[in-house]
Amino acid sequence: MSAVAPVDLPEDPRERIAWILDRVREHDLDGLASVLGELHPSDLADVVEELDEDDRIFLLDLLPADLASETLAEMESEEHPEEILAALEPERIGELIAELSDDDAVELIRELPPEEQTRVLAALPNLEAGELRRLLQYDEESAGGIMTTELVAVSVHLTAGEAIEEVRRQAREIGGEFYTIFVVDLLRRLVGTVSIQDLVLAEPRTPLADLVEEPVAAVPVDMDQEEVGRIIARYNLPSVPVVGPDNVLLGRITWDDVIDVMELEQTEDILRLGGVVSEEEVRGGWLDAVRSRLPWLLLNLGTAAVAASVVWYFQDTIDRLVLLAAIMPVIAGMGGNAGTQALAVTVRRLALTEETTARRFRVAAKELVVGVVNGLALGAIAAVASALVGGDPTLGLVVFLAMIGNLVLASIAGALIPIILERLGADPAVASSIFVTTFTDVGGFFLLLGLASALLL
Amino acid sequence: MSAVAPVDLPEDPRERIAWILDRVREHDLDGLASVLGELHPSDLADVVEELDEDDRIFLLDLLPADLASETLAEMESEEHPEEILAALEPERIGELIAELSDDDAVELIRELPPEEQTRVLAALPNLEAGELRRLLQYDEESAGGIMTTELVAVSVHLTAGEAIEEVRRQAREIGGEFYTIFVVDLLRRLVGTVSIQDLVLAEPRTPLADLVEEPVAAVPVDMDQEEVGRIIARYNLPSVPVVGPDNVLLGRITWDDVIDVMELEQTEDILRLGGVVSEEEVRGGWLDAVRSRLPWLLLNLGTAAVAASVVWYFQDTIDRLVLLAAIMPVIAGMGGNAGTQALAVTVRRLALTEETTARRFRVAAKELVVGVVNGLALGAIAAVASALVGGDPTLGLVVFLAMIGNLVLASIAGALIPIILERLGADPAVASSIFVTTFTDVGGFFLLLGLASALLL
Repeated sequence: MSAVAPVDLPEDPRERIAWILDRVREHDLDGLASVLGELHPSDLADVVEELDEDDRIFLLDLLPADLASETLAEMESEEHPEEILAALEPERIGELIAELSDDDAVELIRELPPEEQTRVLAALPNLEAGELRRLLQYDEESAGGIMTTELVAVSVHLTAGEAIEEVRRQAREIGGEFYTIFVVDLLRRLVGTVSIQDLVLAEPRTPLADLVEEPVAAVPVDMDQEEVGRIIARYNLPSVPVVGPDNVLLGRITWDDVIDVMELEQTEDILRLGGVVSEEEVRGGWLDAVRSRLPWLLLNLGTAAVAASVVWYFQDTIDRLVLLAAIMPVIAGMGGNAGTQALAVTVRRLALTEETTARRFRVAAKELVVGVVNGLALGAIAAVASALVGGDPTLGLVVFLAMIGNLVLASIAGALIPIILERLGADPAVASSIFVTTFTDVGGFFLLLGLASALLL
Repeated sequence: MSAVAPVDLPEDPRERIAWILDRVREHDLDGLASVLGELHPSDLADVVEELDEDDRIFLLDLLPADLASETLAEMESEEHPEEILAALEPERIGELIAELSDDDAVELIRELPPEEQTRVLAALPNLEAGELRRLLQYDEESAGGIMTTELVAVSVHLTAGEAIEEVRRQAREIGGEFYTIFVVDLLRRLVGTVSIQDLVLAEPRTPLADLVEEPVAAVPVDMDQEEVGRIIARYNLPSVPVVGPDNVLLGRITWDDVIDVMELEQTEDILRLGGVVSEEEVRGGWLDAVRSRLPWLLLNLGTAAVAASVVWYFQDTIDRLVLLAAIMPVIAGMGGNAGTQALAVTVRRLALTEETTARRFRVAAKELVVGVVNGLALGAIAAVASALVGGDPTLGLVVFLAMIGNLVLASIAGALIPIILERLGADPAVASSIFVTTFTDVGGFFLLLGLASALLL
């Protein structure tokens, strides 16, 4: 960014946040007042997250209601806003919620425990509280859960001139960007959209019906938010209408909601691939982390025990050739790495593309070839090294065959397991990795030690 | 989506693509002509990617130039557009490029080999070719590389009324959404922005200078695209101005470019965490895959050899107690899993937040606690099982201590290695996992076998 910040406020975001933090901790009212107009809610949210409770309240009480409420809306939800809200006066909370657009208000209220929700809704005007209660009914991860009802919609029975007046009036009311003008009939069923340029250029008496275009997409209110994101990204729509039964227009979802959804889903995918099972949020405490990670580790301990029992079954083989104990984790580990590679590629492909079944089979065939080729290369190196250390060419052959076998197993497991999980309706990013590494551990130990028993001893 | 597709065209994207594919393969001109108006470039791009060369040319020649060019622009770049373009007539290529917005045109031309680029640029009108040549100078991953010069900018010296006329004229010219009206001075230096609503509501003779607002952000032309994406997402800007030296307005970047960047970066992060080193694209062939994955596997083979040599060093210990060979991969594997968990959380945190150093230390301390707690739980279970199988409580103690030690090592490595890599200017998603698993493999073997040597034998 350039040429935007005033003299005092550093331009680098991290320095800017540190600067504001210092002013707040010193309770430097003059310093803060001098930059108040330049503060952005996104920066303030980062500041609030680093403050202790007293300083938070000091800052949130100091800020004008619109800035304070936007700041709350920008805070990562994982930071327990209920603690912050609980410390504020109920009237102040009502004032802050009233400033927010309805989707942000709903998101904030959802974070509160039920009794707090009731308290906050009671502090709001009836009309607004009713609206928010209705929105709270929708599933948090559905189109209804992230939509806003604040939009610009005009009746198809107006003329172009009347429609422009109506658009102006509604646009003033919602404040922010409206992006798309929706056209509805008398029962508020979605008829289509009209571009602002067509409206302005048309002769004022033109019936709106002559200018209306079919919407590129409309999403049902119960569609999963991830699917909504895919549609907005696929068709480059700045806003998409949300419809209920009978195609009635209920709200809209805008591109910035989708960016939030994408960030969340991206976090989820990476955490799940890394074996962080569920609700450990990126900013959670150690207890959250243990709760989220330990079940996964316990599950892994179970599968590791299976792999260990394969080794234990071959204890005589190892007893006669201890070198196998050193080679064993190499074969299993290389399989695990190759399987993770195939898995990462497959998971991304599933997330990004709409594939036909024929294409999937071609991709699985590709992975098989990759497994064989990489297995040949790695097997050759490992075989030569093992044969030299062990002084036995047959040991080299055993290692060579075991490595190829395990890499083929890894490729197939990495390519097919996420596809099978998706078919079964599960998220392919969850649990795929535990299946893949179980296959490659058990397979690696079994192949190496089994081949060694058969060919060496 | 609902109520959008005509009778013939299936609503489900995957079925729709299969339906179009069938029509194209049958060269069913009537069937295709009947739905031509309903086809979206994003769907067509998926279709083109599944066709063989002859059918591709058939389809791309059949489509009107605007639809054909948008389809090329929507194709994933990994599908080698140069092969497709090479099969088209040069005049047709010129026609298609001319239909595209300049950022899409540049993206497409960049995919071509140099001699093809020259050929295509030569087929374009001079003015347009010159403009594209200028844009091609910018780094592909910089703001300049993804910006478009097609925007709406009005002089600060106009009145509101004059500005509206100028906005209308420019908006008609660029066709698509303009989102933001930029205000510039006579030297085209960025002065600020003005909202369309303020313009329309203002008295027509009001000087534009009275309505102009400071831009929330402006990005320098050489800023990395990922940073641009973060700014647009952070401040919810549908479009952001790109400025050169002296704050001269050069172009703009819109939210949909950012979604593309986010998808790419997300793919990159997941592939890198999975150990897919670099340019293997999600849709590449097996040779691309081997080239991208084998170097990483070879590197891993090297570190696995180090871990194996630790085992080899303790061969006498294993010789005396073969059960250790079965427990060994369990300790190393649990460390690897715990390290990957800490790593995934840390990588996401680094990507999402602007953190102070103090906060980073708190997070590393949290990971340490998580490692100890999970180590206690897993160590206790593994210890009891080992003691029972081995018939020796001291073996249980050895396993208990080794497990705790390795989980602590894993947590610290998972939390600190990505931070250190980022400090050194490297991408924390690359190579982090190899360091972490090397630590946990070597650490696990060394702890278990070392403790066993000391306490058991």
